[in-house]
Amino acid sequence: MRPHSRMAAFFPILAWGRSYDRAVLTSDLMAAVIVTIMLIPQSLAYAMLAGLPPVVGLYASIMPLVLYAIFGTSRTLAVGPVAVISLMTASAASAVAPVGTPEYLEAAVTLAALSGVMLTVLGLLRLGFLANLLSHPVISGFITASGILIATSQLKHILGVRAEGETWPAMLHGLVSDLGAINPATVAIGIPVLAFLFWVRKGLKPALQGLGMSARAADMSAKAGPVVAVALTILAVIGLDLGNRGVAVVGAVPQGLPPFTVPLADPALIAQLWVPALLISIIGFVESVSVAQTLAAKRRQRISPDQELIGLGASNIASALSGGYPVTGGFARSVVNFDAGAQTPAAGAFTAVGIALASLYLTPLLFHLPVATLAATIIVAVLSLVDFKTPRQLWAYSKADLAAHAATIIVTLLAGVELGVIAGVVVGLLLYLWRASRPHAAIVGRVPGTGHFRNVERHAVITLPHLLALRIDESLTYLNARWLEEYVLELVAERPQLRHVVLMFSAVNAVDASGLESLEAINHRLGEAGVGLHLSEVKGPVMDRLHRSHLIEELNGRVFLSQDQAFAELADDTGVPPPPVDHYEARGFI
Amino acid sequence: MRPHSRMAAFFPILAWGRSYDRAVLTSDLMAAVIVTIMLIPQSLAYAMLAGLPPVVGLYASIMPLVLYAIFGTSRTLAVGPVAVISLMTASAASAVAPVGTPEYLEAAVTLAALSGVMLTVLGLLRLGFLANLLSHPVISGFITASGILIATSQLKHILGVRAEGETWPAMLHGLVSDLGAINPATVAIGIPVLAFLFWVRKGLKPALQGLGMSARAADMSAKAGPVVAVALTILAVIGLDLGNRGVAVVGAVPQGLPPFTVPLADPALIAQLWVPALLISIIGFVESVSVAQTLAAKRRQRISPDQELIGLGASNIASALSGGYPVTGGFARSVVNFDAGAQTPAAGAFTAVGIALASLYLTPLLFHLPVATLAATIIVAVLSLVDFKTPRQLWAYSKADLAAHAATIIVTLLAGVELGVIAGVVVGLLLYLWRASRPHAAIVGRVPGTGHFRNVERHAVITLPHLLALRIDESLTYLNARWLEEYVLELVAERPQLRHVVLMFSAVNAVDASGLESLEAINHRLGEAGVGLHLSEVKGPVMDRLHRSHLIEELNGRVFLSQDQAFAELADDTGVPPPPVDHYEARGFI
Repeated sequence: MRPHSRMAAFFPILAWGRSYDRAVLTSDLMAAVIVTIMLIPQSLAYAMLAGLPPVVGLYASIMPLVLYAIFGTSRTLAVGPVAVISLMTASAASAVAPVGTPEYLEAAVTLAALSGVMLTVLGLLRLGFLANLLSHPVISGFITASGILIATSQLKHILGVRAEGETWPAMLHGLVSDLGAINPATVAIGIPVLAFLFWVRKGLKPALQGLGMSARAADMSAKAGPVVAVALTILAVIGLDLGNRGVAVVGAVPQGLPPFTVPLADPALIAQLWVPALLISIIGFVESVSVAQTLAAKRRQRISPDQELIGLGASNIASALSGGYPVTGGFARSVVNFDAGAQTPAAGAFTAVGIALASLYLTPLLFHLPVATLAATIIVAVLSLVDFKTPRQLWAYSKADLAAHAATIIVTLLAGVELGVIAGVVVGLLLYLWRASRPHAAIVGRVPGTGHFRNVERHAVITLPHLLALRIDESLTYLNARWLEEYVLELVAERPQLRHVVLMFSAVNAVDASGLESLEAINHRLGEAGVGLHLSEVKGPVMDRLHRSHLIEELNGRVFLSQDQAFAELADDTGVPPPPVDHYEARGFI
Repeated sequence: MRPHSRMAAFFPILAWGRSYDRAVLTSDLMAAVIVTIMLIPQSLAYAMLAGLPPVVGLYASIMPLVLYAIFGTSRTLAVGPVAVISLMTASAASAVAPVGTPEYLEAAVTLAALSGVMLTVLGLLRLGFLANLLSHPVISGFITASGILIATSQLKHILGVRAEGETWPAMLHGLVSDLGAINPATVAIGIPVLAFLFWVRKGLKPALQGLGMSARAADMSAKAGPVVAVALTILAVIGLDLGNRGVAVVGAVPQGLPPFTVPLADPALIAQLWVPALLISIIGFVESVSVAQTLAAKRRQRISPDQELIGLGASNIASALSGGYPVTGGFARSVVNFDAGAQTPAAGAFTAVGIALASLYLTPLLFHLPVATLAATIIVAVLSLVDFKTPRQLWAYSKADLAAHAATIIVTLLAGVELGVIAGVVVGLLLYLWRASRPHAAIVGRVPGTGHFRNVERHAVITLPHLLALRIDESLTYLNARWLEEYVLELVAERPQLRHVVLMFSAVNAVDASGLESLEAINHRLGEAGVGLHLSEVKGPVMDRLHRSHLIEELNGRVFLSQDQAFAELADDTGVPPPPVDHYEARGFI
């Protein structure tokens, strides 16, 4: 790679920055205005969900966007606080310090810093494949359970009660036992806002289109619904003096740019938080990459997952340095950015300027914003995460995947987000390993009149009593090496007439050292039993590698180019070739 | 399965017990006498290696053998204390209490009980496949490093110094700093015994054969070498009064049968020890099954790995209940048992009687046995575990496997046995996942004049500019689902002329839910881009399963029985069929 394109791979801004012109600038600016308006209530709400002062949500929406614009490979991804990561931040930070303390905020900033460092290191080491450990069913289960947890956690703000709890049963118990303390004024704000936002989501767009608005404009207007709710409820609190009737409001928000923060100064905190930080990093990365890939494919653009790790890492480090908490590429905001016409990551940088202006000049207006409004915003946003379709599809398609999905949902609801992710990964891996340790293999015979060999259990084929042909439908690795030995020796032990075993390697793409050792053991044991071991249809790269061991020279048999050739030449090996045995007659000893 | 054979599967004794007769009894009794003589010094030595009173080694060699005779499936496996498990016991127990205290002994008994319960549960749940996580290179690295650790740990007994240490650098440092305190009388016993045992191992058998003894008898006599060393050094200690010259001796050994012990009474101890107990279980199981399989194959017998878990589990529970420590099937003792002619597990039960008699009547004779003699026995036994051949073979065959091997050795030597095993498993799994996330796939074209399709990079084949045929050489699972999407979409993004993509599924044995979702995403995105997605050569079981999803009905293309058919029918799809393009000309855009 030339130094120039190497630089461009590491700083994607060098690639798109070159062709930046006035038309692109106009598109990016338009998108930035729309995203800024949408982001202000969302950032405040997610910070609240994370148990942080609302202004921290604004801080986390400024510098991370600038850094992503420099290092990220998606043209339209919008980074910032998102619901699931906010929930995970709350879960990790509240294990360290009580909500509302400076130590809690420090824990959240530390999570961002740790996550930033981890993502960057994973990116530099090209370890993005680790995200593969999260299967689709596990991710979908985790998102569903998180959506349920988040929505439940916000009900207290709608009802004006104090219910606490980290797990779902604890939250429900808290809500039920606090039902007597419901604040009527809060409910009078919360329920209408909730209803309004649901209507905006489902009914406003068709209504606006009915009034003659274009589909895109109607969509954009519907996205501004939360802003309208924010404005109206602020006016209601001021006009009806609801602050004195027990309606919780946001209160004084510090005015000004994000403070410079020095994270990672406390080794004890790092020791406590590195596991949740790693989980936040991986979940954030998976969410972000999925969104970025979906949007890139729509415009036939490409993203680079390993460089995305670096982009997200830089964003999180920037968030930590400016007093923010963990961020990632969010689905809702990225779609708005895309639909609003963003062409390059510069749109993100312009959004950052918009949010910075808001935190300089708009925060006094937020004093009277009811917390219930923010809670309603969150509930409406996260309920769309809850997915009842996936379990039905998995039930039909794969019970094993359903088990991983269900385990993730149940553990997340009952034991929290961290154990939920871990349970999903572990169950998925165990199911995978269980299957990998029992690969598919078939005894094959010749299809009469052809050179093709097929499974004796599915086709009427010709076999010979002194020759056993096995097709191994999997690469030989340490996960199935033990199985191979057991399988072959079991079959041989059952067949006293056997003189030759042919392993048909047409589907074997690799043989690792454990697979090699099993082959050597099989060769040795068959040799002792007077049975020849032959290989057929070995692929080029596999054969090249086997030649680096002693297997081929010590093989108690031959290597045949085709199974047909092996069948033809070994058929004569009994001196007088035995008559071909029809498969159905031969079943008795197969 | 009939109830009768079900019982026999669970109690293998019901199968072999039926045909027990006088001839088998004679063979079994002979073998038992020989194994008993060999086991007495070995059991004492391994108990000492585990940091336990020597008599605990005898206790661990009585009841476990009886239980294995009932539940085990190998005819000739001999269970009892072994070197590596003794080292792991020492490592785990010394983290809980100082050597020599009752708490240390309690920890060792608890490890046996926990390990017994875990093995039994794994067996009942048929989870033996978990042992597959230990690849051959990891096991061999672990055994090598354990051999080095054990031999080094015993040098202090040969030199008569006090050096302590859990890791290799600490042991070496202890030895070097204690060199001034060497006890000459101990060295005068230790070095000659060491030399004698090495000579017995290498030189005695040929010497005896030279004197006209049969190979088998010479082999058996050589195995009695340690017993001779024990007898001679006891006489030397008594005759030369070496006990008063600083030679450490075994001292008073309680006379009598194993005491009944109640393990697992302390939940705090269980919490501290369950991780090492799990590692001991898995290492012990792997060692035992390897030995059992090797011996069974020699007589064309079979073992059942899941039932072996139950047999070893019962043995360890029995060990714990009778004051012993973790046991497993040992290589050396099993080979002696096999060579001495044992026919059934009854030989093990007779050996148990022999050891019980020894612990009733022989222990007073062991008072003057020098510890240096036991240490020399251990050193000579474990140095055969150290294997310099494997790293050389791995270097030639597979650098990835070499990495797992080296990581296991280094971490075991520097950080101890538990972290060593864990590091080996983790490194092996990461390398596996890394490879599994990048499966092999090839763009294929038609071999001119045939219906065969081959990799364009290895063969001169025919391709069409508007048709891309991809052969996926791996099952589609969540580990490679992301790769599939990236790979296909990348290739499509590079080829603006493309109208059709055919995925050739001849080597796809399964598609899990994540693979399905990726196929659906590819189908959707290709549809948006006006490119058809087709499948060819889909295997029966895979097709059956895909029909349980919506993929086939929503497929933006067709399913072809053969790649040849797909090529023929899609070639016409451009209206006027384009001329076939020779592969080498076409390279530019492939």
